[in-house]
Amino acid sequence: MAAVDFEAFVHELADVSGRAILPFFRTALGVEDKTRGTAAFDPVTAADRASEQAMRALIGRHFPAHGIRGEEYDDERLDSEFVWILDPIDGTKSFIAGMPAWGTLIGLTRHGAPCWGMMHQPFIRERFYGDGSVARYRGPAGERRLLVRPCERVADALMFTTSPLLMNDADRARFEVVERQVRLSRYGGDCYGYCMVAAGHVDLIIETNLKDHDIVPLIPVIEGAGGIVTDWDGNPALGGGRVVVAGDRRVHAEALELLARG
Amino acid sequence: MAAVDFEAFVHELADVSGRAILPFFRTALGVEDKTRGTAAFDPVTAADRASEQAMRALIGRHFPAHGIRGEEYDDERLDSEFVWILDPIDGTKSFIAGMPAWGTLIGLTRHGAPCWGMMHQPFIRERFYGDGSVARYRGPAGERRLLVRPCERVADALMFTTSPLLMNDADRARFEVVERQVRLSRYGGDCYGYCMVAAGHVDLIIETNLKDHDIVPLIPVIEGAGGIVTDWDGNPALGGGRVVVAGDRRVHAEALELLARG
Repeated sequence: MAAVDFEAFVHELADVSGRAILPFFRTALGVEDKTRGTAAFDPVTAADRASEQAMRALIGRHFPAHGIRGEEYDDERLDSEFVWILDPIDGTKSFIAGMPAWGTLIGLTRHGAPCWGMMHQPFIRERFYGDGSVARYRGPAGERRLLVRPCERVADALMFTTSPLLMNDADRARFEVVERQVRLSRYGGDCYGYCMVAAGHVDLIIETNLKDHDIVPLIPVIEGAGGIVTDWDGNPALGGGRVVVAGDRRVHAEALELLARG
Repeated sequence: MAAVDFEAFVHELADVSGRAILPFFRTALGVEDKTRGTAAFDPVTAADRASEQAMRALIGRHFPAHGIRGEEYDDERLDSEFVWILDPIDGTKSFIAGMPAWGTLIGLTRHGAPCWGMMHQPFIRERFYGDGSVARYRGPAGERRLLVRPCERVADALMFTTSPLLMNDADRARFEVVERQVRLSRYGGDCYGYCMVAAGHVDLIIETNLKDHDIVPLIPVIEGAGGIVTDWDGNPALGGGRVVVAGDRRVHAEALELLARG
């Protein structure tokens, strides 16, 4: 079965997930968060669980042989040909703060290689999705193909990272070597930043400490738009960890070089 | 004329501004930006100008005696009883990056005191508005009253700032005294962070180098929701500069104390 056949099903997963999450956005969570203290900053929220349960149930009904790896519940059948990688709320801290820079990540791997991915923002009603060859957008701004933009040098790049505060000291020092050279550095993008690389508005993302579900669902979107995703050493970023994403291979290569030097 | 009479007109200003801005979001700007170099990071954009022109024209037609202070064009009649304070795109860097954390700020002062304000996000179709006594929200999540949430101590606070990189070294050192104590510190909120204080999802915002049009239109929204806005010394923040915003007076007082100590 070709990966492209999953398009309608991925949209269906996004539908059920969005319906599960939205009742919790900008409502009970802010209050609940106050009473539960610091534990509430973990992505363990009612919305996370409701969404993952809804997606797992739909996958189980349509593709009972497929594996599932989510954030909230146990792995299932990871030795299957197809494995779904689910992150119901990427950007939990944005979600808690009421900011719209979070999204639901839905990925599919075949024999371990990412073959379908989507970022869905149900509040704004935006979907960024792709199969590694082509990537598309659907939202308030209509429907169109996603394409990275050219960017020759790091010095021309608009860069995003969620927060340098999340990095250890050694990684932050290396990150800052790149940050000092870019045209503009911005924090707080979460999964949105990656989609903005795919859409040709952002040139570079450098992160650390990613989980596999933070990045695997985004790989077919970024690559489908013509971009590149690796770890800081230029190897595949399938396991998460330290990630460099760029729309233009020249910026990617220069960023890797700067990170190695730092 | 009571300030509340301006409600319908402020919504009309938001309508014309949104129609002027949206054609430029996630479209030509990314490309134009590449060819114009660093100058493009100034908020001098086609969208800014189109929006401000549209709002100035509407104000001129309905209230020719009112003053206008905008970001892009010359001040008009600042000695009038009523003066409009306009910032078509607050969060220009988010706008350039394709991120939705920007908004149009529309404020009205009477004898120098803020009496009406709105933050309009036309892409998401959200409006946060108020007259200093009451504040309301209209958007994809429906329509409701805006109310701050209680927060006893800085140690419990969720804090936003656009970026500590925008602060001078002395201010950043003082900011970091507070940042080390808060429960969660986030960057990149732009005008959205202030609205999230009004909506009861965020507890504290500390910024520097604000222009008057960055903060004056937000004061009636934050105060209408029960929050407090001052400069770092506890004085009115009508001139912009260094600003502390909180939903709860206890957090505001403690933050001022920490900033003074830093």
